[in-house]
Order: sequence, then C-alpha cells, then structure tokens
Amino acid sequence: MERVREEAPRIHNITNYVTANDCANMLLACGAFPIMADDPLEAEEITENCSGLVLNLGTLSESRLTAMLLAGKRANALGHPVVLDPVGVAASSFRRRAAGQLLEEVSFACIRGNLSEIGYLVRGWGAASGVDVNREDYLTRDRLGELVPKLKELAGRLHTVVIATGEVDVVTDGNLAYCILNGHPAMGLVTGSGCQLSSLISAYASANREHLCEAAAAAVGLMGLCGEEAYEKIRECFGNVAYRNTIIDLVSRIQPRELEEGIRYEVW
Amino acid sequence: MERVREEAPRIHNITNYVTANDCANMLLACGAFPIMADDPLEAEEITENCSGLVLNLGTLSESRLTAMLLAGKRANALGHPVVLDPVGVAASSFRRRAAGQLLEEVSFACIRGNLSEIGYLVRGWGAASGVDVNREDYLTRDRLGELVPKLKELAGRLHTVVIATGEVDVVTDGNLAYCILNGHPAMGLVTGSGCQLSSLISAYASANREHLCEAAAAAVGLMGLCGEEAYEKIRECFGNVAYRNTIIDLVSRIQPRELEEGIRYEVW
Amino acid sequence: MERVREEAPRIHNITNYVTANDCANMLLACGAFPIMADDPLEAEEITENCSGLVLNLGTLSESRLTAMLLAGKRANALGHPVVLDPVGVAASSFRRRAAGQLLEEVSFACIRGNLSEIGYLVRGWGAASGVDVNREDYLTRDRLGELVPKLKELAGRLHTVVIATGEVDVVTDGNLAYCILNGHPAMGLVTGSGCQLSSLISAYASANREHLCEAAAAAVGLMGLCGEEAYEKIRECFGNVAYRNTIIDLVSRIQPRELEEGIRYEVW
Repeated sequence: MERVREEAPRIHNITNYVTANDCANMLLACGAFPIMADDPLEAEEITENCSGLVLNLGTLSESRLTAMLLAGKRANALGHPVVLDPVGVAASSFRRRAAGQLLEEVSFACIRGNLSEIGYLVRGWGAASGVDVNREDYLTRDRLGELVPKLKELAGRLHTVVIATGEVDVVTDGNLAYCILNGHPAMGLVTGSGCQLSSLISAYASANREHLCEAAAAAVGLMGLCGEEAYEKIRECFGNVAYRNTIIDLVSRIQPRELEEGIRYEVW
Repeated sequence: MERVREEAPRIHNITNYVTANDCANMLLACGAFPIMADDPLEAEEITENCSGLVLNLGTLSESRLTAMLLAGKRANALGHPVVLDPVGVAASSFRRRAAGQLLEEVSFACIRGNLSEIGYLVRGWGAASGVDVNREDYLTRDRLGELVPKLKELAGRLHTVVIATGEVDVVTDGNLAYCILNGHPAMGLVTGSGCQLSSLISAYASANREHLCEAAAAAVGLMGLCGEEAYEKIRECFGNVAYRNTIIDLVSRIQPRELEEGIRYEVW
Repeated sequence: MERVREEAPRIHNITNYVTANDCANMLLACGAFPIMADDPLEAEEITENCSGLVLNLGTLSESRLTAMLLAGKRANALGHPVVLDPVGVAASSFRRRAAGQLLEEVSFACIRGNLSEIGYLVRGWGAASGVDVNREDYLTRDRLGELVPKLKELAGRLHTVVIATGEVDVVTDGNLAYCILNGHPAMGLVTGSGCQLSSLISAYASANREHLCEAAAAAVGLMGLCGEEAYEKIRECFGNVAYRNTIIDLVSRIQPRELEEGIRYEVW
C-alpha cells in the first residue's frame, strides 16, 4: 500500500464503459493514475508510458479485443504485470474465444473473477451464463477444501496468480493460497465492484512486482475491509450507490496500519 | 415488486455509455441483474441468457443498431419483453431511421420516452430537437384530455405499452391509461433519469409478463415516489448528483407497502 | 452565470466514455443541457440543434475523430463556440495527429488542458506522457512570469482562448491573462475534473459569445470556488467520490453573488 502511494503507478485500463469511471476513481483513491485507452491505434504506445495493464472483457468489441492483444504483448515485452478480468467469459462464444486468444498470446500476472468466470477457465466447471455469479457457484468457506486445489492447479498451469472472489476470496499462485475473509455480501449490489478490484490489484501488482501473490492478497483484503467498514458507516440508510461511493472513499483514506489490523485470512 | 426481488431477472441492456453505470445500479437496486453488451457478435447469445431486453438509442452507432436488431428479434422469438427508449429520436435522421427500422423488425412490449420522443412516434407532433423535452412538449395534467387519446391510439397501433413521462406520466396499452402523479420536477436535472426508468420498467415487465401495463405503471410509480422522497431527504442541500444517488438508493430500500401507499394515479 | 441559467444552452459533447456521465451532470448543474453523440452519421445534425460543442480527446477512436471533424466544421459554419480538451495529447502519435488535424481544420473558441497538454501545443515544452500532468509541468504561481507570455503567444497564434489549469489557472486570449487562484489540490484526485471543466466552459462560452475570455474565466473560477467549498464541506471524511459529487452539487446551487465574492484572480 505504501509503495503504491509512493510510486503512483500509471495503470492502462482497456475496460468496459459501464464501470470505467468507477475504476478510474478507485485507482486515484489508492494512489495510482488511471489511463483508459482502447483503440488499437494507440494501445501499445499508451501501455509503454504506464507500468501496469488491466484487460477487462465487459462490453467487449472486436476493436477492443485487438487493442488488448496489442497492449498485452507489449506489456509482456516490457515486463509490466498484466491483469485479466474475464467478465462474463462463459456468456457468449465471442467472450470464450477472446479469453482463449488472450490466454494463448499474453502472459498474465493475475486473473481475477468470480467462481463462475474462473470456473470456466478451470475446465468448464459451473454453468456460468452471465456476468454475475451463478447461485450454484458461490465460493463459500465450507467449499474451500474442494475448491482451493482446483484454483492452485489453474494458477500453476497458467503461471499466474488466480484471484477467485466470493463469500471468501482465494488468492493463489499455485503454491500458497491466501483465503481472505473480509468483505460484505452487499458488495454484490454494486455494479462493477469486481472491475474496481481488478484495477486495484493491477496498481498493487505494478508497485510490488516481486511479490505478486501478496500484492494481490493485500488489494483484495483492502477492498474487503473497506467494504465492511463502508457497510457499517451507512447501514442505517443503506443504498447501493452510497455504498459504492463510500467504499472508494474509504480506500482513499485508509492507513496502512488499519489494513494490517483489519485483514483476516487463512493460508491454505 | 416482490416478483422482481424473488425472480431477480437478468436484463440485457444495449444502451448508451453516458448512463450505463446508473442503469446497472438501478437494476441492482430493484433486485434485477444487469448485463450490458452491445457487440453484434454476442448480442443474440447474451439475450438468450437473460429474460428481458432494453434498447436505448442514446450515443447510437451503426454497430450498436445492428446489435439491437439481432437481439430484439431473438428476444421476440424467445418471448422476452423488449423495451424501447427512443432517446432523442427526432434529433437526427440516423436516429429516426433507426427507430423506424426497430419498430418494423422488432415487437416491443413497452416504449418509454418523454413527450417529444413519443410525440415523434405518434406522427411528428412536437418539434423534438434533442434528447431533452421541448418546452412546448411538456406533458402536464391539464393536457391529459388532449394527449391520452393520442397515446392510446399509438399504443393500440403498435400493440405495445406506451409510457410517456413528464409532469404526469401516462402508461397505456391502448385500452386503459394510468396517469401517474408521482415524481418531482428536479428529476429533470439528473442525466439519464429516463434511461434508468426504462431499465427499471424492463425488470418489472420481465417478472410480470402477463400484466405488462400494470408492471410498467408500478415501475413508473416506484421511481416517481422515490424521486419525491429523495427530494424531501436532500432538499436542504440539494444537488443533482446527490439527488441521482439518493433516488437509486431509495429504490434499493423501499418496501412493497410503501409503494402501495405512496403511488398516486388516475385511470383514464 | 445568469445567462447560462436563462438561456439553458444545449451543448453537444463528443467525449470519452469514462467521464461522460459526470460531464452531463455538470452541464445540467450549471443550467445547460447536455447531448452526447459521437457517430459520424449524426454528428453534424446534432450540432445544428445545439449552441455549443466540446471535443474531448479521451478514449479517442478513428470514428470519434471523424465525428469531431464533421461537427467542428459545422459548428464553425454556424458560429457556435467550439472547445477543445486535448486529453493526454502527447501520450500517443494517434492523439498528436488528431490534435494536429483538429487545429488545422476547426477554429476553436477555447482550448483547455493541464500544462503538459497545453505545453505540447505550444511547442513540445514538457514531456507529457499521459493524461495526468507531469510533476515537472505543474503550473504554479512562481512560474507565472515564465509561463504567461508563452500561453499568450499560443492564444494569439491560434486565435483562441487558452485555459491552462494547475495550482493556478491561466485564462488568456493573447492580450489579457486572468490568473485564477481558486481551486484545491484534491481536485486532482477526481477523475475527469478537467473534462467537467471543459464542458462547463462550453456552456459559459455559448451563452456569452462576445466575451469568451471572461466567460471562460468565470467558469474556471466557479469550478475552483466550488472545489474549495466542497473540500471544506467534506474534509472531515474526505473521499474522492464524495468530493466529485459535492463539487457538481455545489455548482447546481451556487448564487451569482457568491461567485462574485469568492473568485480570486490577478490580471497579467
């Protein structure tokens, strides 16, 4: 967290237009600088001037996919960590093809999704049909014994840090798995809370390249902790937009000691 | 309202990038799940995994129009209710042509617009020149005698529920017309309040397919009521962004009994 | 300010999808009407129905650039003031080419950017590499002696009002330079605060065509003043999203007398 605030990494986002504004404000809140640019004509150059890249499959288009492939390869060549958010990957053959092509041509430092999205990447477990997690695909604490090995296997196979979010969030590089217990179910009522987390992870990964798994776990813990505190703050007059706003605002104010004291996790 | 919260319908939105985030949060607030996807490559498949569809003409492009036609026909084949929001339909020949093509090739369960937009569809009454309602085109209570028959005629001709919003909101299927008196003029200071309502109507229509007119009227009354209460809540330090946020937040909290008691309408 | 509220000018925005919603709400807050439309098929017609135009280079695409050129020329022919926001102009050869082409084919009433962006237009001073201002490119009070003449030269050469924003904001038409001292550094933590200001300037310019420099200075002072007051209002529990919201909300409430009393500037 301190490194992000000191280094203020520039993060290139090729992302959907629904939550781009929230992702930009989340990046500013955590101390990074957002740049959104998705035209193939400039994707590589923009990435060269940044230190991290996020590829998010929401509102995908052929042009945006081309930009992702170009920027992803350039970021790989430069050693910038690249984060994939496979939003709704199983929802259409276009997104499935896009994810396949990206995984083949780009090396990802981190892949973050809910269990439907990550499950599709594992081997079609789950029946993900949309951008939201399927009811049968909740990542709950009592399923960790079954799921952690599968997520470790995926991380090892793809040489990446896998972040599967749910009631518990699992962050694994194939060896260790951090199971993070922070967060609040109401975060599911905020559009793009996952997209925001992916951008946050990118900032943390860019400022801590030699500890990607711990950086991703810290980002997940940070957002979960802010989600808990934001809920406490507004529970009397809860609303999903106030909740979205309060979470980002808390990210901009939280102190390193609070994160250290508030994060709750188990190592598997 | 209870049905939406029970069934949590997935709503496919092909919509403008200005208000997409607000529409997504409005859908989550009312208990539905939003999916935004506007590429012709995936529009049909996404619709298959949803139970409702909204087509919104804001920030229209040729590609988005193609996606609308594909998704609209598929939704028709599957029996999903399709809602049209003809944003600024009279503002350009491109939008006029798009609306014409959509009305010809897709059957709409509901069409929602302000009086400039709906008026254009009736037969060019009004001189709509933009996305905002023209001053001469306000839908006011003392014009109901003149306007309700025209709106009924339009609804009957297009076999759809017409929702014309203004100082009074008229919801009609050609037989009955519900004239809803809720709402507050300050809602016009929120960008995309109409777009949000169209998405809300889609959720209500999807969960109540056999009572489309009543479902649309309930959605209109719900948003109007929340607009009134939000205004009371923040009137001391009004601002249009706080107002937008508070309306959506109230939609996420309101109870069925409050809607029943608060909705004010006349049947014409 | 009074003229904007009386005339309620329609402003056509061809802008990025990250901050389009905030720009629309900012325009509504100040009393204007926003229309966002960026397809070449309708760009000219939309501009004809407006009285001002903003061209913003964020999330640029070839199609959006074509729309900008078409709309810009039509706005010139109709005498509508056109505002350029060269977001991240130096960040890619595509944006540099786009800015060059726009400056060649369209006459701008105002050009607003930070010192990295404006500096690139002067003659490559600064080493702008992104959308955010470079640390070496801060516009500070002790650099006014060096910078104001360069900005005046640029304004004179391009026959435009140049607005360079930073710790101090300089507004100059080549003769006079207003150096505006309002604002707060935390405004840099809000994504799109610059984009919002460009839209605000467009509304003020459209309603005060014969006093473009003073209109731009008033818009800059208004936003800076609201930035100061918003910071005071929320400093106890600051967050960048709350800050964004509060600034726009204050713009919707401020009275002309407050602006007159609160604006602080020097004429150079």
